Amino acid sequence: MIFGSDNQAGASDKVLASITEAYRGSAHDAYGADSITAAGAAAVCEALDTDAEVFFVSSGTAANMLALSAMVDPWGGVVCHHQAHILLDESTGPALFTGGAAVLPVPEREVRLTPAQLDDMITRLPSDAPHNVKAQAFSLTQANECGQVYSVDEIRALNETAKSHGLSVHMDGARFANAVAALDVHPSELTWKAGVDVLCLGASKNGAVAAEAIVFFDSTLAKDFEYRMKRTGHLTSKARLYGAQFSAWLDSDHWLELGRNANEMANTLRSTIGELDGVRLAWDCQSNETFVVFDKALFASLLDAGVSMYDWYPNAMPPSGELAEDEQLARMVTSFATTGDDIHAFAECVAAHR
Amino acid sequence: MIFGSDNQAGASDKVLASITEAYRGSAHDAYGADSITAAGAAAVCEALDTDAEVFFVSSGTAANMLALSAMVDPWGGVVCHHQAHILLDESTGPALFTGGAAVLPVPEREVRLTPAQLDDMITRLPSDAPHNVKAQAFSLTQANECGQVYSVDEIRALNETAKSHGLSVHMDGARFANAVAALDVHPSELTWKAGVDVLCLGASKNGAVAAEAIVFFDSTLAKDFEYRMKRTGHLTSKARLYGAQFSAWLDSDHWLELGRNANEMANTLRSTIGELDGVRLAWDCQSNETFVVFDKALFASLLDAGVSMYDWYPNAMPPSGELAEDEQLARMVTSFATTGDDIHAFAECVAAHR
Amino acid sequence: MIFGSDNQAGASDKVLASITEAYRGSAHDAYGADSITAAGAAAVCEALDTDAEVFFVSSGTAANMLALSAMVDPWGGVVCHHQAHILLDESTGPALFTGGAAVLPVPEREVRLTPAQLDDMITRLPSDAPHNVKAQAFSLTQANECGQVYSVDEIRALNETAKSHGLSVHMDGARFANAVAALDVHPSELTWKAGVDVLCLGASKNGAVAAEAIVFFDSTLAKDFEYRMKRTGHLTSKARLYGAQFSAWLDSDHWLELGRNANEMANTLRSTIGELDGVRLAWDCQSNETFVVFDKALFASLLDAGVSMYDWYPNAMPPSGELAEDEQLARMVTSFATTGDDIHAFAECVAAHR
Amino acid sequence: MIFGSDNQAGASDKVLASITEAYRGSAHDAYGADSITAAGAAAVCEALDTDAEVFFVSSGTAANMLALSAMVDPWGGVVCHHQAHILLDESTGPALFTGGAAVLPVPEREVRLTPAQLDDMITRLPSDAPHNVKAQAFSLTQANECGQVYSVDEIRALNETAKSHGLSVHMDGARFANAVAALDVHPSELTWKAGVDVLCLGASKNGAVAAEAIVFFDSTLAKDFEYRMKRTGHLTSKARLYGAQFSAWLDSDHWLELGRNANEMANTLRSTIGELDGVRLAWDCQSNETFVVFDKALFASLLDAGVSMYDWYPNAMPPSGELAEDEQLARMVTSFATTGDDIHAFAECVAAHR
Repeated sequence: MIFGSDNQAGASDKVLASITEAYRGSAHDAYGADSITAAGAAAVCEALDTDAEVFFVSSGTAANMLALSAMVDPWGGVVCHHQAHILLDESTGPALFTGGAAVLPVPEREVRLTPAQLDDMITRLPSDAPHNVKAQAFSLTQANECGQVYSVDEIRALNETAKSHGLSVHMDGARFANAVAALDVHPSELTWKAGVDVLCLGASKNGAVAAEAIVFFDSTLAKDFEYRMKRTGHLTSKARLYGAQFSAWLDSDHWLELGRNANEMANTLRSTIGELDGVRLAWDCQSNETFVVFDKALFASLLDAGVSMYDWYPNAMPPSGELAEDEQLARMVTSFATTGDDIHAFAECVAAHR
Repeated sequence: MIFGSDNQAGASDKVLASITEAYRGSAHDAYGADSITAAGAAAVCEALDTDAEVFFVSSGTAANMLALSAMVDPWGGVVCHHQAHILLDESTGPALFTGGAAVLPVPEREVRLTPAQLDDMITRLPSDAPHNVKAQAFSLTQANECGQVYSVDEIRALNETAKSHGLSVHMDGARFANAVAALDVHPSELTWKAGVDVLCLGASKNGAVAAEAIVFFDSTLAKDFEYRMKRTGHLTSKARLYGAQFSAWLDSDHWLELGRNANEMANTLRSTIGELDGVRLAWDCQSNETFVVFDKALFASLLDAGVSMYDWYPNAMPPSGELAEDEQLARMVTSFATTGDDIHAFAECVAAHR
Repeated sequence: MIFGSDNQAGASDKVLASITEAYRGSAHDAYGADSITAAGAAAVCEALDTDAEVFFVSSGTAANMLALSAMVDPWGGVVCHHQAHILLDESTGPALFTGGAAVLPVPEREVRLTPAQLDDMITRLPSDAPHNVKAQAFSLTQANECGQVYSVDEIRALNETAKSHGLSVHMDGARFANAVAALDVHPSELTWKAGVDVLCLGASKNGAVAAEAIVFFDSTLAKDFEYRMKRTGHLTSKARLYGAQFSAWLDSDHWLELGRNANEMANTLRSTIGELDGVRLAWDCQSNETFVVFDKALFASLLDAGVSMYDWYPNAMPPSGELAEDEQLARMVTSFATTGDDIHAFAECVAAHR
Repeated sequence: MIFGSDNQAGASDKVLASITEAYRGSAHDAYGADSITAAGAAAVCEALDTDAEVFFVSSGTAANMLALSAMVDPWGGVVCHHQAHILLDESTGPALFTGGAAVLPVPEREVRLTPAQLDDMITRLPSDAPHNVKAQAFSLTQANECGQVYSVDEIRALNETAKSHGLSVHMDGARFANAVAALDVHPSELTWKAGVDVLCLGASKNGAVAAEAIVFFDSTLAKDFEYRMKRTGHLTSKARLYGAQFSAWLDSDHWLELGRNANEMANTLRSTIGELDGVRLAWDCQSNETFVVFDKALFASLLDAGVSMYDWYPNAMPPSGELAEDEQLARMVTSFATTGDDIHAFAECVAAHR
């Protein structure tokens, strides 16, 4: 019963076969100058229907931090949701990679950013040069930090707000495949057509082994990017590992197929939870993440019984939905590999421990 | 005719099969807390016959820089050979990871460090606190930067010199397997028994896809190391990629078998070169790297004819062996995948272009 | 009519004479090893009635950042008030000096920190190593960011809360003299006796030219501090500048005399404002800073008429006191050099422009 | 008998009076926006006969590092003399300020850089992007590290060499006044007319208290410079300290008068040494620094007898002039305050201790 994270899942057979194939023989070039890497980058461009600068790394944290380092000055700031991965889950990496820039959360403890919140937050930021941090980028997570998905219109409105203040736009797409699958729109609609300058496109959580693409729609930002990769140890020598994964992952909409399974299983999980005692949905979700409130005792029993899931940051609970004393917020994540049997087993486990 | 670098080679079937196996199912934990990672770390300890703290990353540059960041202060310095990878080939990564530390080369332009050179260099370093950089670590490369191998006695003498000045010892073992295979001694003799505090053990250049181990023989240096990995983007989420490779790579001396082939092919290459016109060995080598002096015109013709090899840093040529005007220094590297046919083809190509 | 900042004021005659005296002849040592620097450090220790490690720099920002760099790891965090100088007014310096550490504000937009707010904030911080920022220090400003002064009991309670979570305590004392003068207690009561580990004691805003002391009550934190000063350019060569100022400033309670004048003038200003139309006190203040709400039109007229004062960060206004549309928050600061005539002139100016 | 450094000297009466004057009253603006700072900057421009961007800081190390941070990328490098202050005497500050850039010495251990050495060094630098450090700036010290002065032609030739490789040019002018006084040319000839892009003009060692100007002849490099100053703690609040010093220091060629005294006393010292036993000049000098070789026993006796001077980096001795076993290299520095009596006293002391 694996619901801790989509990074607990394995990899798809197709992706694994592509890795094996890529390393059967020699490459004429290393450090990403090889043909397999080029093919992977071309596949990313094709999937996004544009001609972008594409780079590959092994972790989503690396992708986000490297992207941001190309977007802000060492005295800059990145505005984001109060639960953003770049704020909470990347240690002090953003400061290290950017040479010091600050991550600036929108203060509202809501599950979803709105243009009004974003505008108010940026407007209130102190902006007396050179004393105050200079907001220079906006980072939007899609699917978002709370398991939700922003519509095309929402993304466009948020990005327009950011740009009206002179900020460029980064999208943390660690679960971008889930968002595309949930919305059933072309990925270009959610990104460059809606004002995104740089997309971090994650495959690791959705069927790959370790593969993240940094996609510069604004190619001027990609200047000197290989220096950034090299000096952070992210210019892998036998780099075809990443291109091989992306080519297979994107081929014939394999990525969306994988994402759809994760989403569908999440929908099944959410319906199931609606029928169980001692558990309730914390809020509405549309992607493969589900936030759940358990009776504390039940939660502990389930962990003991082998359900893998994480208790979650208390601040993720919006003010409108404060927890009771005996309640526990938790996150449950489904993946490309989750099956109906897994959810059935979870439901039985809950029933057994009530 | 691939002699550019051992990172152009593919991966061994055994390593590839182990990756595929590791990602067939789910893991209960991510970020290196899983059982496959643990098994990989145990395999490293067993191979080195000691109980060390072991961490895995995807690139040798990352391994070296993370290791050094645990060994020196931001105002410290790392002493090394004038051609060390950490000095020349890792951009300004060492300064980034350590918070500013300098890399300090021994000035002699020789192919091999001696204890006397090392002692003289450290003795001459300005040491007026807090103005001057404070040398705190010594980094030794084995097999070394020039294709040679240090004996157990040489390593011990160099490390004793470093330690007499208060420096800790880092070993850059990107080609450690080749060194062990060449010397036919137990790897512990070349490392912790000879004064090495931290070993960066590279598998990528010798049959793995992308796998480097950072091995702390002095476990006090490993304190907080996962913070260092996380904030540099090197704590991969589905981290079993590395443990899976190391377990297979070390199993039944597979790594030494791979390294031996690379070395033997290098020996064959060196004998062959001895019999060819227009080419000579730049100096004596014992590992899988060979440094060669070509007639310039011949060198250009060979590149055109599809021989992959690199022209090399002019400063690598020791003062005793300056090049003639019409000569070119180059590096040729064999790998676990090099065959006698490859070398034969190279020899024929040289004969054809003279 | 200078009410913009206490850094607009000149310097006291006594301090100026001491500088001139210090540079009449030669010093036997530079970089702070001279006898004038030693005498200044001894004067600081005597004033605080303890034996501390004392270092001098030229700016309060430098003092704060250097102090924090000795208190937290590059993956650490510093907890503070939502209007703290280290959060808002030191650009991204704290990240630069600490190697990446984050500044983490208590979210409540109140003018005064309470132990309960502090405890709640730290408790809610995500603390999953190595992913989340690790809170390691608490920074308290005295006199505080909003012109108020914490009592001995409040400081002790806040620091105990911080220490119960394992945080060390930094005090930003840019206006410490004003706080001591306002409370009329011995400075030791407000610092080391109340749990402060490191005090940044500012003289610049209160009669000196440029002189800030970093006072380590916990001397273990001072290890290698001169390296930190040197590599940030803050180890001034002819360093007796600072010791000379501190010796004169602390002599015969000169600093408190200067601080008392600033406070008394602030009290006069506050009484005066209470009697004027179109102006009101934003909240209660006890130090030499006063926060004032003006009619917007009046505020603009006063600036035009030559009143020097700053419009202030909108977020400084607590939620309980939101501004009306036509109101402007501003800060007015008195100094050792402010006179009753200055305040009288201001009052007349307000009357003239209503 | 103070010959340790020109930073042991006091300050000129004129400079001290100007400081006192500047702080008698209030300033309308802080952080360098005041009229005294503006007047100081104008004085610098006038002295250099150009319209440059001028900023002030308190230490030469800060000036150099801030200037370099505006000239190179975090993956860049700065080429310099093997004894340059930025290489040896600023800890790891250059890496900190630039975000990681390396300082790359010309290897020849000579007392003077030549265009041929510089060209050869840059040509030999590995330049395979993004692996190798990218040389982006050349830093020239005038008066130089070994007490010598480069002629206008030499400076022009060195800078042309640097620029032919795409490097911008920084001049470390900690003792620029001594160089101008020694050469008796207009300072513009030694700087912007000869290809210098950024000059760090030091007053501290030549009669000021603590005052260094960063002068951008290429104003595009000055973009965002105040952010750099702020986040390193070098944007002093009551910043008129520096402008006040520079205005007085530059007024009526006061700086050159001070520099001339230091040079003349150095000449007297050098003549005197030529007539003493047990002491010899290490090499020819033209500025206020003199490098001297002592019998070791004599050197120790002189220190005991109260002569302040420094033993010097062994690597400063050029290969052509190796020391005998019983010899000691030392540096002696004269200043604006040195008198003929000081030198006479030194000579008597030597005679007494032979």
